[in-house]
Amino acid sequence: MTTSNLPENVRIVEVGPRDGLQNERVRLSVEQKVMLIEQLAKAGIKDIEAGSFVHPKWIPQMANSAEVFKRIKKQKNVRYWALVPNMRGLENAIKVGVTHVAVFVSSSESHNKSNINRTIDESLAQLKEVLEVAKKELLTTRAYVSTVFGCPYEGKVDFKRVMEITDFFLQTGVSQVSLGDTTGMGNPLQIRKNLNTALDRFHADKLALHLHDTRGLGLANAFVGLEAGITTFDTSIGGMGGCPYAPGASGNLGSEDLIHMLDVSDIKTNINIESLLKISRLLEFDYGTTLNSRFYRSQLRIR
Amino acid sequence: MTTSNLPENVRIVEVGPRDGLQNERVRLSVEQKVMLIEQLAKAGIKDIEAGSFVHPKWIPQMANSAEVFKRIKKQKNVRYWALVPNMRGLENAIKVGVTHVAVFVSSSESHNKSNINRTIDESLAQLKEVLEVAKKELLTTRAYVSTVFGCPYEGKVDFKRVMEITDFFLQTGVSQVSLGDTTGMGNPLQIRKNLNTALDRFHADKLALHLHDTRGLGLANAFVGLEAGITTFDTSIGGMGGCPYAPGASGNLGSEDLIHMLDVSDIKTNINIESLLKISRLLEFDYGTTLNSRFYRSQLRIR
Repeated sequence: MTTSNLPENVRIVEVGPRDGLQNERVRLSVEQKVMLIEQLAKAGIKDIEAGSFVHPKWIPQMANSAEVFKRIKKQKNVRYWALVPNMRGLENAIKVGVTHVAVFVSSSESHNKSNINRTIDESLAQLKEVLEVAKKELLTTRAYVSTVFGCPYEGKVDFKRVMEITDFFLQTGVSQVSLGDTTGMGNPLQIRKNLNTALDRFHADKLALHLHDTRGLGLANAFVGLEAGITTFDTSIGGMGGCPYAPGASGNLGSEDLIHMLDVSDIKTNINIESLLKISRLLEFDYGTTLNSRFYRSQLRIR
Repeated sequence: MTTSNLPENVRIVEVGPRDGLQNERVRLSVEQKVMLIEQLAKAGIKDIEAGSFVHPKWIPQMANSAEVFKRIKKQKNVRYWALVPNMRGLENAIKVGVTHVAVFVSSSESHNKSNINRTIDESLAQLKEVLEVAKKELLTTRAYVSTVFGCPYEGKVDFKRVMEITDFFLQTGVSQVSLGDTTGMGNPLQIRKNLNTALDRFHADKLALHLHDTRGLGLANAFVGLEAGITTFDTSIGGMGGCPYAPGASGNLGSEDLIHMLDVSDIKTNINIESLLKISRLLEFDYGTTLNSRFYRSQLRIR
C-alpha cells in the first residue's frame, strides 16, 4: 500500500463545551463558557456543541446552558449545537433561539438502559417525536449513536443494529449521525471494517466519527476513518472529558491531536491550531479543567 | 480498502529498563531493576534492554547497569540487551557477560552533535570499530538510528541519509536497525511512505520501529508500520520515559498500548498483557515512575 485516498477537507464538530465539560469536575460559569465558545469560533471552528438541555439534576455542569446560549455573540457562519434528551429539552432550547439540536441513543441495550432507563426502541420512539417538532421549527438536527464499537457492559455491539438505528435517524430527517466510540474500545481493523459497511450504504456527509482516546487508539482509529472516507469528526478541545476520579484516564479525542494529524497530512480544516492551544491553556490554568490532549501537552513542554 | 495484510506475529523489544528509566527522575536500585527485568521476562518478553554502559556522569540512572547484568537470573530464551556508546562501554559490558549490545547514532547532524558532540560520520567510524570487536566476541548487535522522522533542531530529516546509515550498519553486521521517532514527530502518511522505501530495500527482519507517543500518534504510526510490513517494535513498559519536568508530556510508546492493539487485531506476541499491567503498577506505586501509557491508565480506572 503506497498511496492514500484521504479527503482534502475535514469538518470538525467541537464537543468540548458540552461533552467535554459535562465530564469535568469543575463547573464553569456562564461567562467562562461564553468566552470559551467565542474563542473556539474565532479559531475557525464552524460547529460547536455549546451546551445541553438536560435536567440539571442529572448533569449539573450544564445547568447554565440556556443562559450561555442567550449570551454567545453568534457568528453567522458557525453552527451552535445543543444536546436535547427529550421534548422538554427541545422546548427549552427553542426558547433561547437554538437552531441546531442533537439527540442521542446508545446502540447497546444495557448502556441505554443504564444511561436513560429506556430500551433503544423506547428511546427512538420518543426521539422521533422530538425530531418531528424540530423539523417543523426548521431546526437542523444531528444524532449521536453511542457505544458503537464496544460497550462496557456488553462488550461487542452488533453493527447491524447500529446501521438500523442510523437508517432510522436519517429517515427521520437528521442531517448527520455521529458514530460514537464512547469508551474508546474500538480498534483500527474493526473500525475500518464497520465504516466500509456504513459508507457502502450512506453518503460520507451523513456520518461522523466520534472517538475517544481512552486506550491511546484515538488517532489510529481516526486515520483509518479518514481512509475509509469519513470527513466529519467530533473532537474535544484539550481532550476534555477525562474521568473526574482518575485524571489522565479517559477523554474525548483532543481537537488539537486530530487537527495536528490533519495539518501534517495536508488535510484542511481552516482551524488555527495555535489558537486552540491558547484556549487549552485558558481551560487548564484559568478554569482548572483536566486536559489529556497529547499534542497540547507536548507543546506545553516545548514552549 | 477492505482488507489488511497485517503480520501474524510481532516481536517486542522492551526498552523500559534502559530508554524509559534513563529519562525518569527517580533512580532505581539494583534490586528494583533486577525485579523489573525478571518480571518482564516472566510476562513473555523475549527482548529486554536491561541497561547501558554510558559514563555515569552523563546518565546517572544507568550507573548500576553492570551490577544489574550480573544479578539478573537469565532465562535462556530471552535476549538481554545493553546499550554501549563506545569501546569502553563495550568492554565494560563484556566484563559482566553481556551477549547482546546496541549502538546508536542520530540521522540528524545537529541532533548527533548536540547528543554526542560528533558528526554522524565520526560516530559511524567509531561504532564500526566497536561493532567489529563485538563481532569477534560473537555478540549479537543492534543499532538505533534516532530522529528518523523528524528532528527537534532541523525539522525534516533526509530519509536517504537514514537509508545510507541503515545500510552501513547492516553491512557492518548488526542484526537489526531500529528506526527511531525520537521526539514523536512522525505522522502516518510520512511513516508509511518511508517504510515502504525501506522495506523495498531491506528485509523486514532487519528493521524495527521505535515510536514515541509525544503527540498521540504512537499507535497510528504503529498501525501503518504493521501494514507496511514491520514486525519488530521497541516499546517501553507503562510508556516510561516521560520528560521529568512535564509529566504526561512525552514518552516512548507504551508496551501495553501496542500489545493491546495487537491483541485485539489477532496479532500474536506471546506476551501476557495482564502481567505487564501489574509491572506498571509496581513501577508507578512502588517505584514512583511517571507512566503515560493510555491503556495502563484506562485499566487503572476500570479496576
